[in-house]
Amino acid sequence: MPLVEDSHPTGLQEPKTIAKTVNGTTAHHLESEKSSAVSNRHSSEDDLAVLALRNLIFDICGQNGGGHGGSAIGMAAIGVALYKYVMRYNPSNPDWFDRDRFVLSNGHTAMFLYALNHLTGFDNWTMDELKGYGSAKTNGYTTICHAHPEIEVPGVEVTTGPLGQGVANAVGLAIASKNLAARFNKPDFDVIQSRVYCMTGDGCLIEGVALEAIALAGHLQLDSLVLIYDNNQVTCDGPLDWINTEDINAKMRACGWTVLEVPDGSYDVQGIVLALRYANSLRGKPVFINIKTVIGLGTSVAGTAKAHHGVFDKESVAKSKLLAGMDPSVSHQIPENALSYFRERKTHGDRINQDWDALVARFTSTYPELAAQLEQRRKGDYGTRYHEILDSLDTADMSNLATREVNGLILEKMWPACPALCGGGADLVNSNKIYYAESDVFHPLTSYSGRYIRYGIREHAMAAISNGLAAYNPGTFLPITATFFMFYLYAAPGVRMGALSHLQTIHFATHDSFAEGQNGPTHQPVEVDSLYRAMPNLTYFRPCDAEETVAAWRHAMSARHSPTIVSLGRDPVGHVPNTSREKALKGAYVIWEDGNAQLTLASCGTNLHHAVKAAKSLGRDGIAVRLISCPSFDLFDKQDLEYRNSVFPIDGKPIISVEEYVATTWARYTTASIGMTSYGYSASNASNYNRFGLDAAGIERKVRKYLGELRGGNARMAGWKQL
Amino acid sequence: MPLVEDSHPTGLQEPKTIAKTVNGTTAHHLESEKSSAVSNRHSSEDDLAVLALRNLIFDICGQNGGGHGGSAIGMAAIGVALYKYVMRYNPSNPDWFDRDRFVLSNGHTAMFLYALNHLTGFDNWTMDELKGYGSAKTNGYTTICHAHPEIEVPGVEVTTGPLGQGVANAVGLAIASKNLAARFNKPDFDVIQSRVYCMTGDGCLIEGVALEAIALAGHLQLDSLVLIYDNNQVTCDGPLDWINTEDINAKMRACGWTVLEVPDGSYDVQGIVLALRYANSLRGKPVFINIKTVIGLGTSVAGTAKAHHGVFDKESVAKSKLLAGMDPSVSHQIPENALSYFRERKTHGDRINQDWDALVARFTSTYPELAAQLEQRRKGDYGTRYHEILDSLDTADMSNLATREVNGLILEKMWPACPALCGGGADLVNSNKIYYAESDVFHPLTSYSGRYIRYGIREHAMAAISNGLAAYNPGTFLPITATFFMFYLYAAPGVRMGALSHLQTIHFATHDSFAEGQNGPTHQPVEVDSLYRAMPNLTYFRPCDAEETVAAWRHAMSARHSPTIVSLGRDPVGHVPNTSREKALKGAYVIWEDGNAQLTLASCGTNLHHAVKAAKSLGRDGIAVRLISCPSFDLFDKQDLEYRNSVFPIDGKPIISVEEYVATTWARYTTASIGMTSYGYSASNASNYNRFGLDAAGIERKVRKYLGELRGGNARMAGWKQL
Repeated sequence: MPLVEDSHPTGLQEPKTIAKTVNGTTAHHLESEKSSAVSNRHSSEDDLAVLALRNLIFDICGQNGGGHGGSAIGMAAIGVALYKYVMRYNPSNPDWFDRDRFVLSNGHTAMFLYALNHLTGFDNWTMDELKGYGSAKTNGYTTICHAHPEIEVPGVEVTTGPLGQGVANAVGLAIASKNLAARFNKPDFDVIQSRVYCMTGDGCLIEGVALEAIALAGHLQLDSLVLIYDNNQVTCDGPLDWINTEDINAKMRACGWTVLEVPDGSYDVQGIVLALRYANSLRGKPVFINIKTVIGLGTSVAGTAKAHHGVFDKESVAKSKLLAGMDPSVSHQIPENALSYFRERKTHGDRINQDWDALVARFTSTYPELAAQLEQRRKGDYGTRYHEILDSLDTADMSNLATREVNGLILEKMWPACPALCGGGADLVNSNKIYYAESDVFHPLTSYSGRYIRYGIREHAMAAISNGLAAYNPGTFLPITATFFMFYLYAAPGVRMGALSHLQTIHFATHDSFAEGQNGPTHQPVEVDSLYRAMPNLTYFRPCDAEETVAAWRHAMSARHSPTIVSLGRDPVGHVPNTSREKALKGAYVIWEDGNAQLTLASCGTNLHHAVKAAKSLGRDGIAVRLISCPSFDLFDKQDLEYRNSVFPIDGKPIISVEEYVATTWARYTTASIGMTSYGYSASNASNYNRFGLDAAGIERKVRKYLGELRGGNARMAGWKQL
Repeated sequence: MPLVEDSHPTGLQEPKTIAKTVNGTTAHHLESEKSSAVSNRHSSEDDLAVLALRNLIFDICGQNGGGHGGSAIGMAAIGVALYKYVMRYNPSNPDWFDRDRFVLSNGHTAMFLYALNHLTGFDNWTMDELKGYGSAKTNGYTTICHAHPEIEVPGVEVTTGPLGQGVANAVGLAIASKNLAARFNKPDFDVIQSRVYCMTGDGCLIEGVALEAIALAGHLQLDSLVLIYDNNQVTCDGPLDWINTEDINAKMRACGWTVLEVPDGSYDVQGIVLALRYANSLRGKPVFINIKTVIGLGTSVAGTAKAHHGVFDKESVAKSKLLAGMDPSVSHQIPENALSYFRERKTHGDRINQDWDALVARFTSTYPELAAQLEQRRKGDYGTRYHEILDSLDTADMSNLATREVNGLILEKMWPACPALCGGGADLVNSNKIYYAESDVFHPLTSYSGRYIRYGIREHAMAAISNGLAAYNPGTFLPITATFFMFYLYAAPGVRMGALSHLQTIHFATHDSFAEGQNGPTHQPVEVDSLYRAMPNLTYFRPCDAEETVAAWRHAMSARHSPTIVSLGRDPVGHVPNTSREKALKGAYVIWEDGNAQLTLASCGTNLHHAVKAAKSLGRDGIAVRLISCPSFDLFDKQDLEYRNSVFPIDGKPIISVEEYVATTWARYTTASIGMTSYGYSASNASNYNRFGLDAAGIERKVRKYLGELRGGNARMAGWKQL
């Protein structure tokens, strides 16, 4: 490893001086970064604090038969440096708006965060809660100590666990603070100082989503971000050099990051503090701090994959307890002096929080209008203007527009109406019809006050960064993303984490079927809807026209704790009768009723238009057809039974869905489905509808065949059928 | 951009000499690489060939109103260098086993490949086919010229289009050739010389999947791979520096690649040839050739995003035609001398193919056994031994094993039985129970003849690399992958491309429900099955026990043109009555029949065991229950109607599915479903089954409630119900 060679590894026996070489910058450069908190007299206190943290982690690992303790053990000195000396936070007010954000991207080391939250005095992180880690949680027992950090718990910024995404979340958080600072800070009024510290192990740095986010962070020169690499050279399966031998420092520099190194991350708290403070002093680049640690330090499995998870050997744990002057037979005890060392942060946190409150008060006097805007953002108040826009939008003459175009027009009106909106697309925005002002681009060369983010061809990171933006503070940012619906499969792990984390985001997914035409099956989703329609706490909304696109926006804006995918078509498809922005919010509704109907056709999106034509043609031939528009099962499933049965009557008559996707969810409500059973094809829109029997003629043909097979019988009793 | 500064940009007017500086290596190093084909006398011929290629691309773009021509225009000199001077291939035998593989990762530039295939004389790539590019394909008209290259067509190695994946495919192809060479080459018998050339634009290099694959290729020191960067600094939305400003050369070097540069990629065919030959002479690292080009060269939109797609201006096209001595009013014509320049490759290809055939013949005489093995691999013959293993596996005493463990045991027997097996897991293989021999690891420090690939934490690349392995030659490699089922969401875009491309791969997805326990909702799939069960040409198979795990293998091995996901549980679950490796291949079958049954319970995987218990309990209480094991809808859907109705009778009696997933596909066959409507929870296996009402008691409770609601009525007429 390319770590600085003149390292001075030390242990408890030989407390270290702070003078170190950090990335070729000699100590005298760093001396100026010293604060009163940094001096030799702290070393033994620091060592005891590190030991107390390690011993608590040992106990957490031991209490219920295991956990991912090895890296947490190795990272203890980093934790002390961050939580004692560097991070601005208030344990008594975990949601303090201007706190620094800490992201544990290697979320499996959760107990690292939990133990620090307890030690520094977050009210909810009691020792009893810590004792819940790893428990079976039977008989109604609950704890906030899940195996991975979960955002619902105060003191956890984002839910992490699936590797790599935390790094992207951190980039989102850093964009958020950078943007707020550019928008609201004034000379002498740095009301936004929040910085982002993200912890990463070897694993996260290998995942594509992190690599995408890292390149973007470098490009955006996000100097509000510090990525701390717990460099223990071990992953779940074995030594890192089994799977990766890249020069990570060189790679980070190539991506536009400043790279610092700390050779002794096991013990050297003050060395880490200096590196962090130095990082904070640097401008113009995000900073990567490569800190050499030892997984499972001080145990019989130290430095090996065996330390990755499991219980540690009793002898090593006992030795560590004795070193701290504790009785090895007692667990979950914190030495008095170590506890007061950490708990001092409560007083400190209260003070800096109060200072900030006072600053904001002065800011409010000096810049009342700006302060009111900030207050609105802090409250997550989107205002009322957006309602008016959506309510008043006249769609009468929009029948010649594709839903992606209608969406673009709405977005254009929304940007000024809703200051929380923030985000952009993954390099296809001309096709997505995502309009934005060049002057509103978030970029160092224009301004960080811009809200349009050019994500580049980084779909997964785009979704995960959006989660970071949304997680900054509820409603302060309303992130949007955009790409082709097909490429939301690239983004899926990030979209899922947003849904799981109850984060509001709006995803604009255009080109949502083979109607996109020429690009062919690689670009044509036929099964991606099945994923998103099954994904909990996410609304998949597929409008057929302008009216329903308004409904999609209404829902997306009002869903304060869940993401929405607005699924949009490429081509204009003409007039759909009786669509309604109000009714569409019920998820499905009748657009053509007929008491004498022999069957019901249900469809959505681009395909609905073909279903309407087919219904008309069948009607002319004496086969009366009811028509249902069904833009969102997620919303429809929430309606009461009476309403649901009024839309999809259970009367034995055929109900046939029509959609250019593989029919999965439809079977809940229909007796038969006309859909896809194969991938799409590279051909024109019209050609594909014809090819796959999903144009009016194809639908009519299949309906007639089905009716013939039923021969007047009960459709439901014939069993669901793929037509 | 950090391109070599002493470039000598040249045009047609000033044909270049070959002396260039390539990455600091002066010309005298390169002279030795010259073959008879490289000398100044070729320059004007080369220029005319480049022009002919460009003009053909102009015509293809113009013929049907557009296409992604800009990069193809810019890459023309690279195409000529590759197809005229460097690549080993035989237009008359596109499937020649030892050909070099060419991957067009920037697949939207498809016409680049199509035009070259036509010019060099691939039989199927006629001018008439080329004229089909971009056509609507109505009225039954077909063409092989799709908007993106599709693997089904001879002359196309892999289907590309979704950015980044082609790079990973190329890594898979390079692993394949490296592995075959290590296994079969002998002194004087280099029967495997195949190299891989992959073309990438700016977009692919930004995508996470490519970044994962690039790091792995560097780690594996894959010197059989050359990645050619069409560095035109433009993406779909605008200039590259809108979204990316990294130092790509430094990044590639940090990832363990050799980096070469060609400053004038627009015209300098011989400079590119030298760089490619130099690359081929290097050992120990994959090579990245950064070639500066101009998108839409020579047109009114050259160098801008407007050149990315669309028709080019007539004046520029006319000028280009005149330069080639052609009548601008005539399209799709190739100058005679240019055509013979390219078509010479047909003779050349025949010759080197014949030379190779002769080499193999001599090899067969000298090493008959090894040659027989190679022959078997070339034929894609998996032999019969694997059948015997699967047929004879005694599962009687495996009821104490989790399906992941059974799978591991089978795999252990399969490695020696099926030499085509190749692959590994994404850093969780101890948990996945993927056993392998340390000596069989594919790595330069051990041997390239190993078949176990340590993919690292690169799920998406793992899937896409597997596609490359499978695409090398049908059946020569049978790739396997492994990770938690949840993380197949990271891999999903790659898995999909394998299914779309008809490539056989086997994905081992363990920890396939909340039964995995402590890791919590971030690790517990509840909706991922909905994606894969809807994905065409992929079999999702979820065995409940050892018998059905054997069935999963039987299917996976026999599905020669589609991938299989084997969905496996973490925990042992005891004995399931009447399961059968034969019957399981029908996808669903009755494991407990009862003529007096009041209802049917259908389930699969770990949850089936709880359903069995519930059925027994209900039976004891006088409510007779039929039981169905349903490991694979994909297989069941293919059974005839009679069989399907015999398993899921349409008689009005309740049919209830039980599974720890959101019930989507089940609704096709059931009247009600017991499943998930939320994410999972971090708790023990048993605790979660209890929590979500999916243990025996929960199932029984919900069944009773449902029966009560039905009050003896017709379940099907009551409509499908989520219980």
